[in-house]
Amino acid sequence: MIAKTPKPPYYVVIFSNLRTDDDENYSDTSDRMLELAAQQPGYLGVEHARDELGITLSYWADLESIRMWKEHSEHVLARNMGRSRWYKQFMTRIARVERDYGFEKET
Amino acid sequence: MIAKTPKPPYYVVIFSNLRTDDDENYSDTSDRMLELAAQQPGYLGVEHARDELGITLSYWADLESIRMWKEHSEHVLARNMGRSRWYKQFMTRIARVERDYGFEKET
Repeated sequence: MIAKTPKPPYYVVIFSNLRTDDDENYSDTSDRMLELAAQQPGYLGVEHARDELGITLSYWADLESIRMWKEHSEHVLARNMGRSRWYKQFMTRIARVERDYGFEKET
Repeated sequence: MIAKTPKPPYYVVIFSNLRTDDDENYSDTSDRMLELAAQQPGYLGVEHARDELGITLSYWADLESIRMWKEHSEHVLARNMGRSRWYKQFMTRIARVERDYGFEKET
């Protein structure tokens, strides 16, 4: 659930979104995009949560990997559907992870 | 719900977490931390979502603001409670937002 990313630096695409009521093809397309993203060069992992707000974090080795995934033809089609149907509002942020630290409870 | 952040560059603290079953004082402390963070110098906004995974994104003007918030005495106490009681696992990532773009549906 929490992505196992390598030592920084690496990159993250933060996709924060509010959905419309239009669910047609949303889940299938969303699943397909996660599956497809995971096959791309430079992909490091993904994390996702939603209640009212949806947040998807995808982690990448470098900006070039992010650019290539952005231009992937199936991803372009999905994004166009997103704008026209599924999302009321979104913000995409591209950021360079400079430091990270984790914690896991001993069981 | 989606934070209105300024033009990049700015910083984000990505807090991805899995909770334990221990809810005692969790909501109150969580609300208090959001309230307190919003009063700190350099604070730019926050976004939060949870289903199984919880993701909290807090946005900051610079690394110094993040460091000062990390050292805030009430925040230190809350983090200690987090490790001992509320979180099974978490990862904190500090990243520099280099680019962003948004979309809002015309109504």
